[in-house]
Amino acid sequence: MADRVQEILSWYSSDNAGTKTNIARLLRHGKLAGTGKLVVLPVDQGFEHGPARSFASNPGGYSPLYHFQLAIDAGCNAYAAPLGFLEAGASQYAGQIPLILKLNSHDTLHDEKDPLPSVTGSVNDALRLGCAAVGFTIYPGSSHCNTMYEQLREIAEDAKDCGLAVVVWSYPRGSGLSKEGETAIDVVAYAAQIAAQLGAHVIKVKLPTAHLEQGAAKKVYESTRVPIATLAERVKHVVQSSFDGRRIVIFSGGAKSEDAHVFEEARGIRDGGGFGSIIGRNSFQRPKADAMKFLHTIMGIYAGEIQ
Amino acid sequence: MADRVQEILSWYSSDNAGTKTNIARLLRHGKLAGTGKLVVLPVDQGFEHGPARSFASNPGGYSPLYHFQLAIDAGCNAYAAPLGFLEAGASQYAGQIPLILKLNSHDTLHDEKDPLPSVTGSVNDALRLGCAAVGFTIYPGSSHCNTMYEQLREIAEDAKDCGLAVVVWSYPRGSGLSKEGETAIDVVAYAAQIAAQLGAHVIKVKLPTAHLEQGAAKKVYESTRVPIATLAERVKHVVQSSFDGRRIVIFSGGAKSEDAHVFEEARGIRDGGGFGSIIGRNSFQRPKADAMKFLHTIMGIYAGEIQ
Amino acid sequence: MADRVQEILSWYSSDNAGTKTNIARLLRHGKLAGTGKLVVLPVDQGFEHGPARSFASNPGGYSPLYHFQLAIDAGCNAYAAPLGFLEAGASQYAGQIPLILKLNSHDTLHDEKDPLPSVTGSVNDALRLGCAAVGFTIYPGSSHCNTMYEQLREIAEDAKDCGLAVVVWSYPRGSGLSKEGETAIDVVAYAAQIAAQLGAHVIKVKLPTAHLEQGAAKKVYESTRVPIATLAERVKHVVQSSFDGRRIVIFSGGAKSEDAHVFEEARGIRDGGGFGSIIGRNSFQRPKADAMKFLHTIMGIYAGEIQ
Amino acid sequence: MADRVQEILSWYSSDNAGTKTNIARLLRHGKLAGTGKLVVLPVDQGFEHGPARSFASNPGGYSPLYHFQLAIDAGCNAYAAPLGFLEAGASQYAGQIPLILKLNSHDTLHDEKDPLPSVTGSVNDALRLGCAAVGFTIYPGSSHCNTMYEQLREIAEDAKDCGLAVVVWSYPRGSGLSKEGETAIDVVAYAAQIAAQLGAHVIKVKLPTAHLEQGAAKKVYESTRVPIATLAERVKHVVQSSFDGRRIVIFSGGAKSEDAHVFEEARGIRDGGGFGSIIGRNSFQRPKADAMKFLHTIMGIYAGEIQ
Amino acid sequence: MADRVQEILSWYSSDNAGTKTNIARLLRHGKLAGTGKLVVLPVDQGFEHGPARSFASNPGGYSPLYHFQLAIDAGCNAYAAPLGFLEAGASQYAGQIPLILKLNSHDTLHDEKDPLPSVTGSVNDALRLGCAAVGFTIYPGSSHCNTMYEQLREIAEDAKDCGLAVVVWSYPRGSGLSKEGETAIDVVAYAAQIAAQLGAHVIKVKLPTAHLEQGAAKKVYESTRVPIATLAERVKHVVQSSFDGRRIVIFSGGAKSEDAHVFEEARGIRDGGGFGSIIGRNSFQRPKADAMKFLHTIMGIYAGEIQ
Repeated sequence: MADRVQEILSWYSSDNAGTKTNIARLLRHGKLAGTGKLVVLPVDQGFEHGPARSFASNPGGYSPLYHFQLAIDAGCNAYAAPLGFLEAGASQYAGQIPLILKLNSHDTLHDEKDPLPSVTGSVNDALRLGCAAVGFTIYPGSSHCNTMYEQLREIAEDAKDCGLAVVVWSYPRGSGLSKEGETAIDVVAYAAQIAAQLGAHVIKVKLPTAHLEQGAAKKVYESTRVPIATLAERVKHVVQSSFDGRRIVIFSGGAKSEDAHVFEEARGIRDGGGFGSIIGRNSFQRPKADAMKFLHTIMGIYAGEIQ
Repeated sequence: MADRVQEILSWYSSDNAGTKTNIARLLRHGKLAGTGKLVVLPVDQGFEHGPARSFASNPGGYSPLYHFQLAIDAGCNAYAAPLGFLEAGASQYAGQIPLILKLNSHDTLHDEKDPLPSVTGSVNDALRLGCAAVGFTIYPGSSHCNTMYEQLREIAEDAKDCGLAVVVWSYPRGSGLSKEGETAIDVVAYAAQIAAQLGAHVIKVKLPTAHLEQGAAKKVYESTRVPIATLAERVKHVVQSSFDGRRIVIFSGGAKSEDAHVFEEARGIRDGGGFGSIIGRNSFQRPKADAMKFLHTIMGIYAGEIQ
Repeated sequence: MADRVQEILSWYSSDNAGTKTNIARLLRHGKLAGTGKLVVLPVDQGFEHGPARSFASNPGGYSPLYHFQLAIDAGCNAYAAPLGFLEAGASQYAGQIPLILKLNSHDTLHDEKDPLPSVTGSVNDALRLGCAAVGFTIYPGSSHCNTMYEQLREIAEDAKDCGLAVVVWSYPRGSGLSKEGETAIDVVAYAAQIAAQLGAHVIKVKLPTAHLEQGAAKKVYESTRVPIATLAERVKHVVQSSFDGRRIVIFSGGAKSEDAHVFEEARGIRDGGGFGSIIGRNSFQRPKADAMKFLHTIMGIYAGEIQ
Repeated sequence: MADRVQEILSWYSSDNAGTKTNIARLLRHGKLAGTGKLVVLPVDQGFEHGPARSFASNPGGYSPLYHFQLAIDAGCNAYAAPLGFLEAGASQYAGQIPLILKLNSHDTLHDEKDPLPSVTGSVNDALRLGCAAVGFTIYPGSSHCNTMYEQLREIAEDAKDCGLAVVVWSYPRGSGLSKEGETAIDVVAYAAQIAAQLGAHVIKVKLPTAHLEQGAAKKVYESTRVPIATLAERVKHVVQSSFDGRRIVIFSGGAKSEDAHVFEEARGIRDGGGFGSIIGRNSFQRPKADAMKFLHTIMGIYAGEIQ
Repeated sequence: MADRVQEILSWYSSDNAGTKTNIARLLRHGKLAGTGKLVVLPVDQGFEHGPARSFASNPGGYSPLYHFQLAIDAGCNAYAAPLGFLEAGASQYAGQIPLILKLNSHDTLHDEKDPLPSVTGSVNDALRLGCAAVGFTIYPGSSHCNTMYEQLREIAEDAKDCGLAVVVWSYPRGSGLSKEGETAIDVVAYAAQIAAQLGAHVIKVKLPTAHLEQGAAKKVYESTRVPIATLAERVKHVVQSSFDGRRIVIFSGGAKSEDAHVFEEARGIRDGGGFGSIIGRNSFQRPKADAMKFLHTIMGIYAGEIQ
């Protein structure tokens, strides 16, 4: 299966050896090593939703060490978190799992229709903590999108110079969109395209619905009959919209939900040619043994061991 | 015809040898090499309009490699695209076609009356990707015009220091103008002048109509009887407004339209002394064979092989 | 008790030796040296409330030297103040007490609903004045929170590079919150989490009430039965919310109040596993002899000498 | 008359030798060389008003070369223009006439009550183009005046470090002033003072009327009986307001008008002790032979050859 | 009296030798040399109020040289002015009087309720002009106070690094205050405290009235019976509020007024322990001989030669 990693790396031929090495680190770690698939553990909910909403249901998660250990023990490809959480364990767990430093975050003590996350870490922080990649969230559709795109531009240029990989969370949101439109297939595909054009190596989007948000796009989807009826078809279209599959696209699990439902989604991602999942709340908000079993099932689906 | 290239280069005598070399690369590549005419393939629609609206009608175009190959095979002078699209092929196609890195882009998930594109790439990016030029869009007439002009000023100074050429898309738009005014001859000529004064080496404008937008200008056009009745006359006036023809001015094809109409426009550009076309959607939104034939006809018109 | 300091330092294993040394300086100075507990004297009221409101009741405090001497004589772990106050004595008292330079401050000659303090000092200032740490205030809940978080991000990165410790005053305030919500247990715990995620080594928050401010949080506190009835329980929850106790969290005394009340609070902090207090107005707004007695009682409570 | 140049240079004794040399270049070039008087050709109307309004009446002016040649042939002291126009001829005409690079410009495709020009060039541009000075426009009275003053501050510091001279166009305009107030004697004198205090070596203002705009100023003009009845008296007052005549102050001709009227103004400037004129539209919007004759008459008035 | 200078310098023990030397230069120059008292001549009215309002009553003052000579001849401790005025004489008068470069200024062609001066000079300018200090105005109470405090922070850090002294004009003004409140004793004392905390070496405030502006402060002044009935008492309180007299505080004379009144104020400043005066309009808006006599009387009062 090493060939699959080489194939994926060939899509990033303009990047330097350092960045290619770090993309390879993500792809060659954990239970899915070498398959070209990824399951990433992200834990930014403490900042985004507050500590009790994030960790009270499984209090082990108040500790930053818990998540390092969970990601390692479950065989995830990488662990992603904001500055404080990574600083609290990066030295102790050095070399045990690829790290992704989330460089911007948003809290809900002050809310606004058009969100703009704060930049809370730097490429230098990622380097001193031994990370393989930086992560950055953009909200296409927000009136602040220019600010986010330009922050990302600078960070991405800097990260690439330093041989890091760039992971972009592209979540449509803001006054330019209806609530339903945030996960509309045309909008999610557009968000993936934007992240790709901005130079992302790995793109993270939400799973799209069959809704079509924008009038001009709707006309095209209908006239050219883009298949979007099933989840697998929609995943396939998002992957196509990410440079015809030449960028790694992974999908987020969203809020905690029924296991069967999440497994069904993983099958859709796999069958549509998606590259994997980034699963936070569904992993760390349950007892560790459960979480490991749950993650292994998902990994099994991606590895083709489970149908 | 090499003399024509030398003549054109003589207009840029204040530029350094590196920039002159890169302008020459644009003029000495492809089927129109040495004629002083250019046909450029731009593909920024993925960012500007979203992936399906751009590529669903000819799905090969989802792949960034498609456009490199199309520009090369059709014998275009250059290929222009945003960061992601160029990163995805620059290494693979190194040295096969001059590249123009578009340094700002605008998406339609959040729309506003007075647009301000995001800066999405840098001069350093252009250098590491082996580009001949950087591209930048300004919207004269927008309330954000100062921001765009000042971003361009910094980029142009930096690009010229590094021996790159500077291509400016000058598209009047925003609350200062009526919809009809965006392509009015006085406004388009003014937009060309602004780009030239800002230090552009190559200026890209839309084809102007005979409409006159601004009262003070209208009076002058009428009293001094500037000929603007035919397309060729209007092209001639725009070229004159670009330092009396001492700057390269090319015209955009706009939305997909009838071939005969586009050819007629090319004749107007040629007869008015324009330097060529930048043709995106009319090229890549049709099957490749068709596109090549279509582009060759336009090149034939510019080369004088087709009347 | 030196083991306790070593234990605390082990939580900061990703920091460089300089920063660890300065955290140790805070923990190994004064009457509580080596206990893992801290009592810090902060004097920023001159800037925040004006000189007479701060010092008229005990006029010795108009002099910057008074506070250095008080902190030293009372055996505090550190003395924290803005630039002017530290400049006025840092050379004279060099090496006699660890100093914390407050890098932002806010005055009340111009008030606003969503406060944004001014940055009034720099990491370089802290270095030239021989400080062990920089201090910075954030107001989660303010519409200006992004600005503060990003100022802190830069300062913290810079301070850590230079081997300083970072102390964050995290005070929820602004249009996102009700007045009662500023000290609600869910909000204070969230504020502590934010400071920790932003990379604070030492976190200072206000003592929380049992009020629950945010609907989504209230639901979780109730369903998971987080104990918040007593002050000790609430302190415990805040400490838990600060990386499960792996960050130093100290509590502010607030406005001048009854001694018995303050001592009761200190017992609550101690019993809940808090790391100590930062006590300004209750110390310097009374005669020095009184202040020393008062502070020694609090230290005695933390040291376990007084029940 | 060389003594007069030395006398003028003595006013700039705090400047470095480079800047003094460049001020001297302006004063020792052309027909007025050595007299201490200047006639400067400025051509920024292409940017400010658009190409047709600027050049249609004398189409030779569309070419950037035309203006270099006109300024040289007419014996002007210097030629001032924005980046594009200077780049288009600086190399070709190197050393034939002192150049002033206008570093900010404003177009009329988007208009606003309180104007803020765009910065469109840099001190580095001026250096690479071999200029003697940089030019910068401020609009005292605009709500954006701080931005302009601070841009000028940085540019002037940089220019002086590099040995360039600084020419400031000081044009009162904006919501702080009535239309009539823009040329009121108190306002024009104030605008000259501001430019001088900001460190301008050469100040350009409009010719003032006898109107008094500001109440507090009116009272002083009347009580101290400042003579402002004739143009010469007003020019004298503006010169006095420019450090008692120790700064070079030149006056703009404004829109195209009757020759006799312009000559009358030149006499007023001369008789009031002004240092000369900056004449754009009245020069290049007429046939070249006419323009030369017209400019020579004005130079003759300044040289005292014509009464 | 040299001991008094040494005593004053001891308050600035955290400053480097360069800054101490420059503070000493201010204290050891002119008729009051060595007394610890200062009379400074400031001439920024040309920028602040316009030239005629400033100089028409004594036209010699239009010349920048006039003020250098006046300050030298009258034996002032220093001369303070904006960039242009200092550039016009700094070389000529090099070494004859300590200079203070005012780094921000405000004009009245555009007025606003919440003023924000423009930064019009730099620390580098102060160095190249041989200044002993930089001067900077803050308006506590303005909605723009953050901007001013942060500009001052940067400038002060830079100035101190370069061994210059920092003089802060602290003038409460803006929407946070009533007109009467601008000179209220609580507000002026607060303004002095803010300047001191921001790191000023020399603080300039207006003479306070007995009015109390802020409710919370009023309560404290009344309950602790701070004596504020006489001018001397109020000066004493302002000095106390400036680090208990460990910072140099001087008072401004304000608009032109009766000599007897100004002398009475000087006695109040002296008797309250103030460090002197900064006197502009009362000096340069009268004939030079008068001005010298007037200033000598004030100096005599400070020196204790005149009661």
